[in-house]
Formats: sequence, C-alpha cells, structure tokens
Amino acid sequence: MNQIIISKISELQIAIPSWALGTGGTRFGRFPGAGEPGSLEEKIADVTLLKRLNPSVSGISLHIPWDIPKDVAGIRQQLDEAGLKIESVNSNTFQDQPGQVHSYKFGSLCDTDNAVRNQAIAHNLEVVEHGKDLGAKSLTVWLADGSNFPGQQHFRRAYENTLESLKAIYDQLPNDWTLLLEYKPYEPNFYSMVIPDWGTSYSLCQQLGPRAQVLVDLGHHLPNTNIEQIVARLLLLKRLGGFHFNGSMYGDDDLTTGAIKPYQLFLIFNELADAAGDTSLPKQKIDYMIDASHNVKDPLEDLLQSLEAIQIAYAQALLVDQLALQTARENNDVALAQILMQDAFRTDVRQYVAKANELKGGSANPFLDYRQGGYRELLIKQRGSGRATGL
Amino acid sequence: MNQIIISKISELQIAIPSWALGTGGTRFGRFPGAGEPGSLEEKIADVTLLKRLNPSVSGISLHIPWDIPKDVAGIRQQLDEAGLKIESVNSNTFQDQPGQVHSYKFGSLCDTDNAVRNQAIAHNLEVVEHGKDLGAKSLTVWLADGSNFPGQQHFRRAYENTLESLKAIYDQLPNDWTLLLEYKPYEPNFYSMVIPDWGTSYSLCQQLGPRAQVLVDLGHHLPNTNIEQIVARLLLLKRLGGFHFNGSMYGDDDLTTGAIKPYQLFLIFNELADAAGDTSLPKQKIDYMIDASHNVKDPLEDLLQSLEAIQIAYAQALLVDQLALQTARENNDVALAQILMQDAFRTDVRQYVAKANELKGGSANPFLDYRQGGYRELLIKQRGSGRATGL
Amino acid sequence: MNQIIISKISELQIAIPSWALGTGGTRFGRFPGAGEPGSLEEKIADVTLLKRLNPSVSGISLHIPWDIPKDVAGIRQQLDEAGLKIESVNSNTFQDQPGQVHSYKFGSLCDTDNAVRNQAIAHNLEVVEHGKDLGAKSLTVWLADGSNFPGQQHFRRAYENTLESLKAIYDQLPNDWTLLLEYKPYEPNFYSMVIPDWGTSYSLCQQLGPRAQVLVDLGHHLPNTNIEQIVARLLLLKRLGGFHFNGSMYGDDDLTTGAIKPYQLFLIFNELADAAGDTSLPKQKIDYMIDASHNVKDPLEDLLQSLEAIQIAYAQALLVDQLALQTARENNDVALAQILMQDAFRTDVRQYVAKANELKGGSANPFLDYRQGGYRELLIKQRGSGRATGL
Amino acid sequence: MNQIIISKISELQIAIPSWALGTGGTRFGRFPGAGEPGSLEEKIADVTLLKRLNPSVSGISLHIPWDIPKDVAGIRQQLDEAGLKIESVNSNTFQDQPGQVHSYKFGSLCDTDNAVRNQAIAHNLEVVEHGKDLGAKSLTVWLADGSNFPGQQHFRRAYENTLESLKAIYDQLPNDWTLLLEYKPYEPNFYSMVIPDWGTSYSLCQQLGPRAQVLVDLGHHLPNTNIEQIVARLLLLKRLGGFHFNGSMYGDDDLTTGAIKPYQLFLIFNELADAAGDTSLPKQKIDYMIDASHNVKDPLEDLLQSLEAIQIAYAQALLVDQLALQTARENNDVALAQILMQDAFRTDVRQYVAKANELKGGSANPFLDYRQGGYRELLIKQRGSGRATGL
Repeated sequence: MNQIIISKISELQIAIPSWALGTGGTRFGRFPGAGEPGSLEEKIADVTLLKRLNPSVSGISLHIPWDIPKDVAGIRQQLDEAGLKIESVNSNTFQDQPGQVHSYKFGSLCDTDNAVRNQAIAHNLEVVEHGKDLGAKSLTVWLADGSNFPGQQHFRRAYENTLESLKAIYDQLPNDWTLLLEYKPYEPNFYSMVIPDWGTSYSLCQQLGPRAQVLVDLGHHLPNTNIEQIVARLLLLKRLGGFHFNGSMYGDDDLTTGAIKPYQLFLIFNELADAAGDTSLPKQKIDYMIDASHNVKDPLEDLLQSLEAIQIAYAQALLVDQLALQTARENNDVALAQILMQDAFRTDVRQYVAKANELKGGSANPFLDYRQGGYRELLIKQRGSGRATGL
Repeated sequence: MNQIIISKISELQIAIPSWALGTGGTRFGRFPGAGEPGSLEEKIADVTLLKRLNPSVSGISLHIPWDIPKDVAGIRQQLDEAGLKIESVNSNTFQDQPGQVHSYKFGSLCDTDNAVRNQAIAHNLEVVEHGKDLGAKSLTVWLADGSNFPGQQHFRRAYENTLESLKAIYDQLPNDWTLLLEYKPYEPNFYSMVIPDWGTSYSLCQQLGPRAQVLVDLGHHLPNTNIEQIVARLLLLKRLGGFHFNGSMYGDDDLTTGAIKPYQLFLIFNELADAAGDTSLPKQKIDYMIDASHNVKDPLEDLLQSLEAIQIAYAQALLVDQLALQTARENNDVALAQILMQDAFRTDVRQYVAKANELKGGSANPFLDYRQGGYRELLIKQRGSGRATGL
Repeated sequence: MNQIIISKISELQIAIPSWALGTGGTRFGRFPGAGEPGSLEEKIADVTLLKRLNPSVSGISLHIPWDIPKDVAGIRQQLDEAGLKIESVNSNTFQDQPGQVHSYKFGSLCDTDNAVRNQAIAHNLEVVEHGKDLGAKSLTVWLADGSNFPGQQHFRRAYENTLESLKAIYDQLPNDWTLLLEYKPYEPNFYSMVIPDWGTSYSLCQQLGPRAQVLVDLGHHLPNTNIEQIVARLLLLKRLGGFHFNGSMYGDDDLTTGAIKPYQLFLIFNELADAAGDTSLPKQKIDYMIDASHNVKDPLEDLLQSLEAIQIAYAQALLVDQLALQTARENNDVALAQILMQDAFRTDVRQYVAKANELKGGSANPFLDYRQGGYRELLIKQRGSGRATGL
Repeated sequence: MNQIIISKISELQIAIPSWALGTGGTRFGRFPGAGEPGSLEEKIADVTLLKRLNPSVSGISLHIPWDIPKDVAGIRQQLDEAGLKIESVNSNTFQDQPGQVHSYKFGSLCDTDNAVRNQAIAHNLEVVEHGKDLGAKSLTVWLADGSNFPGQQHFRRAYENTLESLKAIYDQLPNDWTLLLEYKPYEPNFYSMVIPDWGTSYSLCQQLGPRAQVLVDLGHHLPNTNIEQIVARLLLLKRLGGFHFNGSMYGDDDLTTGAIKPYQLFLIFNELADAAGDTSLPKQKIDYMIDASHNVKDPLEDLLQSLEAIQIAYAQALLVDQLALQTARENNDVALAQILMQDAFRTDVRQYVAKANELKGGSANPFLDYRQGGYRELLIKQRGSGRATGL
C-alpha cells in the first residue's frame, strides 16, 4: 500500500516558473537577492538543480519577452540533458516593452482600439512561436485587462473584444496545444477585471473550443472562496487545464505554496485524486505549475518548500479512504466523513515524500541538501551578488 | 427629456415578496411587529396598499407552502381588482414541513438519496401547479443545499444530482414559464453550497434550456464582488432572468434595498439601462423582485423605502449620457467617464420619481402618506398586534 | 521529552457550552436531533459523559435564562461528583424572554432608554448571582447590540451607554470574578455592532478595570483577519481572558473547532504556548471554552471532535522548537522559521493525545468509544427522540 | 441656511500628497504620464495650480527622501506666496535608499536588529528636521513592517520593538507637533503587519502620549469594515489625528476618493460633522490629506475629482438634520433615521460646492477649467513628456 503511494507521489510533475527564480517585490519596494540567474540558460540551470534535489520538477514555465531564447538549439539541448521540458509559455500584455507601438495602459486583448488588440494578438502568437521552438504545448494567458473606475469600461464590449481576440489566437494554436486561461478578481485593476472569475473564464473557453481550458491560480479569488469546489466544478465540466500554485492569505500574495492554508491545499488535491479515479471523466492532462514571488526568501529555497508542500498535500490526499468516504456520504455520516478527511491530513507523510524523491534519484531532504550543499554561495560566486533577473 | 425619464420610471414593475410583509428575524431572535398579515388574502391586501401608494408595485412573489391559496378564484379576483399579478412562485426545500416523509437536513435536489430528491422534485412541481392556478409565469428555485464540513459532500455528485433533479422540474414547466435559479456562496451551509456562484448557476441553466435563467440576489456574493459586472455578463450571455433586490454590507443581510451601497445599485441599473438600449440583445423579461427581511422596521415602510431606492437608481441610470460615455470610453478618457457616471448619480432625481408615481395615480411621497395615513394603526386594529406571518 | 508533552496535553482544561449539547439551527430552519438534554441536570450528565471519554473537559459554560438551576444543592453535588465546575455564566440580552418588561429589539446595554439599560444590567447581575450559587468565576458578556442602518444609532452615545452599563455590572462583580467581553463585527446586526472588534473590547476593558478581559471567539472576525496576532496582542496587553473555540469559513459559522483551518488553530496555540513560557508575562488564567452550533452532527460527537482538534493543535504547538525559532528570527532566516513551524504541525501527534487522555483515565479514542458505546441510542431511550433543549 | 453651509464648505482644508502628482503604478507595471513634476519646486507649482482652481487645497504632504528641499528659503517663499503650508512630512522605511547601511528588507522600527531600528529612528528624526525647516507640524508614520510567513516574526517582540522605537521618535518631536500613526492590515507584507488595525495603533498612541494620534487611511481595512464607526470610536477616544482619503474596492487600491463608495464617504463626514458640534469633545485638529496613486488618469485631474468628492460628502453631511436624527434615534424610529441620512445624501449639493469655491476665489468647476485651460499641455511643454517623479 505505502509502496503504491510512494510510487504515485513520485509521478507528480510540477513546473517551475522562470520568473520566480529571482527575488520579486511589491509596488512598495524590492529587496534584491544575490546569485540570481540573468539568462535563460542560467534559469534552466537553476531548475536543473531543483530537479536534481526534488525530482518532481518536470519543467519550466517561460515568460515572453523575458525569456526569449537566443540559442534555440542550445536551449533544447540543455533541457534534454536535464530531462526538463517547457511546460507552458506565458504572454505578457500587462506591461509596455521598449519600442512597443501601442500601449497596454488601458487594456490589451479587450481594448477599444483595434490596433492595440491586434498588437496583443500578434504578441501572443509570437509567444506561441517561441514555445514551438522549445517544445512547449500550452500557452498561458493572464490578462491584466480591466478598469479602475465605474464607467471606464463597457463590460459587454470588453468581453466581446476579448473573446474575439482569443479566437484569433486560438485559431492559430497548434493542434496539440492547449490555451490556458486564467481569471483574477482584482489587481492590477481595482474596479473590474475582464476575466474576474472562473465563470467568465469558463464561458470564454466554451466559445473557443475544447483545447481552451481554465487555469486556477490559488491566489486569484475573492475572500473566503471555496477553491476546491471550483476545482471540482471544472473537473466535471472538463475545463480544468492547470494550476498556478502559491500561498495566499489576502489576495494574490504569491507566497510559498502551503504556507498559509495547508488544509485547503490538501482538499484541492483530494478533488484531483478523487477525479483521477473516476472512470467517467476523460483522462486529461492538468498542468501543475508554481507561480510565486519570493520577496524575503532565497527563491530556490522557497521553491523547494513549495514543491514539498504540494507533494505532502498529494500524499495526504492519496491516503483518504475514498470507499469509506463514499459510504459515509451516502449515510449522511458527516462526522465520519470529517474524520476520514482529517485522518489522512493528520498523518505524517514526510517519509513517503522523502522515499518518493529518493526513488527517482533525488534527495530525501531537498531543502537541507540545498543549504548544506552551499549552492547559493556557489551561485553568488559564479554570478555575483548584483545580478538582476528579467523581472 | 424629463418627461421621457418620468415616463420610463413609471414603467418600472417591481414585485413584493409575500414573506417580507411580516417582521423577520435572525437565528438569535425575532422581535415581532403588529398588524401583520396572517393569510394570503391579507398579504395581497398589504401589497394592494403598497401599490396604491407606489404604483411601481406590479406583483407578488409567493412562497409555497406558506402561501398555498385556499380559495383560488377568490384570490384571482382579489388580484385582478388590485391590478396585481403573481410574479413568481418560490419553492421551499430548506425546511422540513410537518408530515413530510423525508428530511432535507442533508440536502434536497442534490441529496444522495433518490427518495429525497424525488420528494423535492414533486414539491417544486406542486409549487408550479399553485403558480399556474394563480397565473404566475416563473418558478424561483433557491437551494440551501450544501455542506458544512470538508468531505461531507461529493462535489461532482451533488452537482450531477442537482442537474438531474432540475431537469425533471424543467421538463414539466409550462412552455411560457421561466425557471429562475439563484446562487449563494454560504448560509445556511457554511463550507460549500451546491450553487455558490453565478458560474455554477449559469452552467446548470445552459444544460437545462433557454427558459432556465439566473436570478441575482444582491446579498448572495462573497465580499468585494463586482455585482454589476455579473449583471452585464449574464445580460450578454442571455441568462439574466431576474433580481432579488436588497441591501447588504456583509452577506445575505436582507436589509432595505439601497440602504448600504446606493452607488452599487445605480451601477447595476446602469447596466440594465444600457442593455435595454442595445438592439443586439434580445428583448427579454427580467423579473424585478424585492427580497428582504425586516427586523427593526415596519415591513411596509421598509418596502416603500426599497421601492423608492430602486426607482431612484433607475432614474439616475436613465440620466447617464450614454453617447458621451461611449466616446469617453473610446478615447480612454477615464476621468470623463467617471464624471459622466457621477453626474447622473449626484443629480437629485426625487422629483422625477414623485412625478412618475403621480402619473400612475400614486403618491408623490408614499412613505409619508403611509405614515400620515395611519395605515399601520388601522391594520393593528383589524388584525391585532400578535398575529404572526407564515415565516 | 514526549512524556513532558503528554503531561502538558493532559493539563488542558476545556469547558463545554450547555447550549451546544442540543442540535442548533440557522435562521432558515432547524433539523432536530434525538436524545438531547432538556434540563440542566441532563446537560451536566452529557458533559460528564464527555469528560469520562475525554478528560480535558473541565467544566461547563451556562447560559441564563436557559440554564437557571432549580436545585442548586443538587446541581453542585452533581458537578462535584463529576469533577466538573461551572466555567462561566453567559447573559442573554439578544432575545426577549416571556414576561420581560422592556424589549431588546433596539439594544440592551447600549440602549437609548435608561429603563432598557437598567433591565439589562439587572439581568447580568442576576446571572452573576446564579453563577455564584454554582461556583462560577466569570461572567461572559456578548452583546448583540448594534444597528442595521446608517443613522440608526449614534456611535459615540452607544459606546458611552455600553461603558456605563458595563461599569454598573463590573462594580457588582465579586472580587475573584472576571468579566469576559466578546466582540463581533456583524450579526445579528448588519450595519454596525457596538463592540465590533478587539480594539473596542480592549478600550472598554481598560476603562472598567483589570478584571475586565477580552474574549476571543474564533468566528467573530472580518474576512482574512490574522487571529493569532490578535491573541498575541491581547497577551502582551494583559487582556486575554478567554476563548470561544469553533470553526469558521465565512463568519460566525459555529462549526467544529479545527474543521476548516487547522493550521490557524495551531498558530493560535503557538502564541499561547510561547506566552506561557515567557516569564515577563503575568501568569493569568485564560478560559478555554467551546462555542458552536451543531446542525448536521450528533452534538456530542461534534464536541468530541472539537476537543480532539484543540488537543492536537496544542500538542503541535508544544513541539515547536522555540529556541531554534528565536535564532531563526534573529537571523531573519524566514525559510527556516517556516520549517520549524511546519515541522511541528506536520507531526502526527494523535498518539500523544491518546496517551494524555489515558493518563487521566479517559479513552484513547473518545469518538470511537462514544459511537461503539451506543451512548446516543441510550440517551434516546432515556429521553425520547423529540426532546428540545433550551435553545 | 445655505449661506452657512457654503461658508462651512469653504473652510475645508485638504492637503495634497506630493507623491500623487505623478503617475503611479502597480507591481505589474507603470504607464507613465507626461508633464509631471520632477523637483519639489515643480510639485509645489502643481499644488498651487490645484489651489487656484479649488481653494480647499491648503497644503502638501511631503515624502522624505523623495522631497528633501535643496533650497529651504526658496521653498518657504514659494509656499508663502501660494498660501500653502506643509501639512505633514512622511518617513519612508519601506524601501532601501542608495547608500543605506542597513536594509529594511525584514523590518524597520520593529526589526530584531538594534542597528536597523536605530537607523530607522534616525531617518524619522531627519524627516522631522526637514519638516521643521518647512513649517510642518506633523510626522506621518506608516510602517510596512510585518511578516510574510507564520513563524517569521515574534508578534510580541515586534510590537515592543516598534513601541520602543516610536518612543525614541516621539521624545524628540517638537512640542507643537503630532505623530500620526497609520495602520494597515496587509501589503507589502502578506501574513502579518505590525500595526494591522486601529486597535494596535491606538494602543501604541496611548503609550506614547497625547500627541500621538491615529491616522485613518480609507484603503487600509479588511473587507466589509465599517470605517465610519472606527472614525467615531477614535473621535470619542480623542485619538483621531487625520485621514488619508482615497477610494477602495478591494484593499489599498489608492483610487480617486469617492469613486467607489460615495455613501461611505458621506457617512464618515457625518461622523466628523456630528463630532464638530459636540461640545463635550475637545477641539482637535484633524489633518485631511489625500493619498492616492493615479495609474490611468492625469494626476491633477484625479486630485481635482478627489477634492470635489470630499467637498460634496462634507456638504451632504452638513445637510443632515441632526436634531431630527437625534429624536428619531431616541424613538427607535429606524426608518426615519435612514430617511434623514438619505435625504441629505440624495440632495444635489454641487452648486453649494461651486459657490464655496468661488467664495474663496476659485473655480466653480475646477475640473472643467483645468481641462479647458490647457494646463497639462502647458506642463508638457515646460517639462517634457518623459519626466519622472520621485516615485
């Protein structure tokens, strides 16, 4: 039994976001770290290190234009040697880039101006091209589009423009690609966002086609949202494309996964584990990606903590006695249902996770080995202490 | 110009909920009022009085089993004479009734037990029959179904059961009826609700058919929700069936409409007014209904305040210069867009509302006339001070 | 080491609220249970059973007028024999009682009417008398006082009236008693509560005297509140008098303790454990009480789950390596600080709790023994299935 | 009557924050404007223009080190000629400045390291010196200090360190100065802030002395907070030192004042107007300051909109019939109390505000005059389109 769980844990595949390899910041300031990667090659090197320590690392999410590969063949070789793939490529229409003709100040795919929309569409298609170069299979679209003031934006027009723009992108997407569409209720716009909730994202995906899927970022919800239920909903509706894992207390806090609400993370994985065993659901790939901003920790340490938290939540979910749970539910035995959930959650599964890592040639304690291995000191020596990432 | 606005205001049609004609309460206690209606006939008498004072009152929402008519012909005649209609009939599967075979303690349309589901379906169909007797054209379904603890309910099964049950009801619905489906994020269940958000309600309606429509209750949202955007979304998706108007600061507070967030109410009506002028949208009936619980006010006074607040918000929305707004939006003139909205909102439209009421034979100041008319004292004389409503 | 932890766990003292021994309800309905206690004697019998299974039960919180003892000597003897004490007596000015001269519809200790205030003061003093009869040492005051609409209440006057009323109560309090003052942001009033937050409760306690202390109910906070920090704040300010433990996802949901946010519960106990070891803080008694409403579970099972959750959180808190944590904090080693917290939380401490229970003559698995012991069936036989509690 | 109101409106004194004269941004990007001020002299020029249009402008809030005056005498003369004063000086310990010895990455006044705390204290005292040079009378302290992860910070130590640091600053404050202490629940720290709520700020001020006062920033509250009640609380406790006015839908959104919740703004001013007429309260200066971040509007236009919104809210508050309201409250006439509030709010007071501006030599429509005056075009000509502000 335990061997099955260990084996299942070892099959987890989690992608690292390139933008989280350097120290992030808030609008109030940024306190840079040291030894951070400057080039795409260095970022892949960091992820390679993470994978060596924790083999659940399977790939990287790239961010364009921050991660435009200069040497495609070299990057592909580096990825192959590390056993890594590009999980997803992310477009960026929430900032203006130097030399950009039109500004995204008032929107991108939703903009009232055709020219802005076309520029944003073209950017997304360019991102797909870079992704194709590197073997990616999905485009992640997060739109900052929205409005700060009542009246600023025509809600229906903004939705229609966005849909039309997304269609133009979707139509050009390779057949084996998925379009992952995020939602977020606020920030950087503080009155409305064009895609504020899963319902909006879902309705857009329906109109795009089967390869348009909703991406759930754990920090993109209003207070008190039952996220695990949204996960279950999307699983049932066959529109759950992936996750951005992170920790959240107030909003898009981008903290370490599992740092604030470990029980919620377990409950999410309980839905995933339960659905995985449901033969009535299609076997669909769900991208597990981390998305965080590390402001006060070494980014690599933070990512190792996120990886472990995800593994633990998954291991606990695997321990849930689904058969007994089903019976308890049918009997409306609420107290027993709670016990079955909490029994799994209260179990110390760290040894399982350690064994799963070792099974794949990784470390039993990645965090400790990272620290004791002196990797950060080495990186500082190599890269200096002042190097900034693309972010 | 003003005549057009006054004329438009006078066309507003708002339904009064039968259950709000008596003093409500919280789980902590109830402080009864006096002179409250005990029978359906008395409730219609109260609404008739309201309509005489404020002619925007067009109908009544009934609640079954609280309002089962004993004398159908008599009730129809009473309604006809008052110029009232039954706007919608509401089913109740959130309480057990005396003599009920199966309990709704753990759910109704979603229940794991077929027998419970069938009983709940039958109840809804019975509600429709009562509605048909009285000329109603819509069934409002609000489900308290959900769970209090992680693990208690299987999210996917609960959704599927609910969909199946709703289909059984929808299939029996007369062709000219609408099924109005509410959503609510919490209470009376405090971990999950089967239909917590508009996205769930929308997806269910899609699977039911075109006459299944989403009902927006202003108090049924998580903190900080942009409700006017949801309204716009549903308008675009052609699934906005109606409203339950009330005031809310924290949750389903059931306060007087407009008492807490008058600007939000205006913004909602701005969406409605804008959509009404959009020829690309189908002309669809949207039921305007009040839903509130009056704990510390005379219910009739409270309803008069709600009616006036709705009229004011609508009048202000009519004042928005939509053409100038459209230009401002196209120019990304955010400051001007805000001014156009606030100019309308800051205008004192009370005289317009007064004139609209007078135009239809009502009172220029319904609240004042109600008080000075000594109606409550009269009702107390007629009905006594201890009479309880169905609630 | 483990022996010390087991011994410390076994010293936990938790009080059971008399009102949670029966099935609760929401404003939408109540689905009664069976075999529930009807008299104070039966309530004490239930708590005696709980204590036999889980010896962390030390006492009962009473609610007046629901629990007015008819046979004081008999009750005292029953308590003595069971090794139970009355932890706290709770006043009730949120409902009107039959025969009450003035109504609390618009307030009690805050009311604009002197006569209402005096009646509420007298009630509180009567509650104290009942408490003295039974050996209680604290009066718990929760005020439903507040307003539903802007303008309804004069904020400063309401505060001043409340302060004056509390002074009148405090002045009559026996010297060895504590006045525990709760706060709550909303419900049953939905615009303002007179004591909405810890700051208000704290400022009132300061003006009352050292024996006035703040009581923290876990469900009485706005969304996203960091409750453990409030606990730390009150500990430092020497005003933490006690807890009402329960589980909460949205508000005053009154769910089983630890059912929704077990990590938060652990973090609260981490503050308590840390403060207990701080010699600069005065040794002050903090009342641990459960306060919940059991709508879908057997109340005794629910309470056993709450007790266990509290024990587990405390046991985990005891495992935190405070010395290492202090060093990590001084070094700003954020990642390590997180690990130290999570290492304790991830440890499976259920065996410790089981041993602690056995050490005091209780059950290693109180829930299981309760079920297998067939206690509920026995109670139903004794009391019937229709018996209602005071609530 | 109207003359009295107009006269009272004309006495409003509102300070402009120097940092809001340029386009702000979010952590996701910044879209710069044009013609923005680069030097303190240019910032004062902008505020002078604002004052000429809207004479309620009385002063400026400065931010150190962004606004360190190079030519003190020149600045003073410029201020005198414009009839402006420096309202408050703000310290900045949420960012590191070039050449700074110790980093504020992990805290400033709360830091575990004495050296960091001393540096932050010294900075605050330096800010006071700059303020003295320019005639300021208050120091505004907003601390970003807090933690991102459970365990990172020792709550009690952090509070004690902060208190000790504030004491060191307070002790050096000139006798006629006020220390204004802000609170904020989250951001830029996302687990805890050292001063998260008014209760913490209040308790610190109590321990500092009478010239330590709480500053209320409208955007610094958890969801659903009743801010007007906090204002009333602080007025009663004699600790309301000032405001940072802005608009907020989700958190510290820094939108235009009154743009989202105009009724809330009115209710806040109702408390201020009511307290101003209460002879039992000491006459205390309350600093009215705007604090916003203008991301999609011309900053000067945005500030003019904020100024107008504040004037309107104040004018409406002046219209409340306080005597009738008092009677309604004493009679528990809740419906009438609501009417009295809403009657004032629904009144169109824009003419009053226009007259008040004209009375003091300003414009009847400052926004329109600003636009039609072509000021921004002029500023762009003078300053160019690429100039960045300090922010």
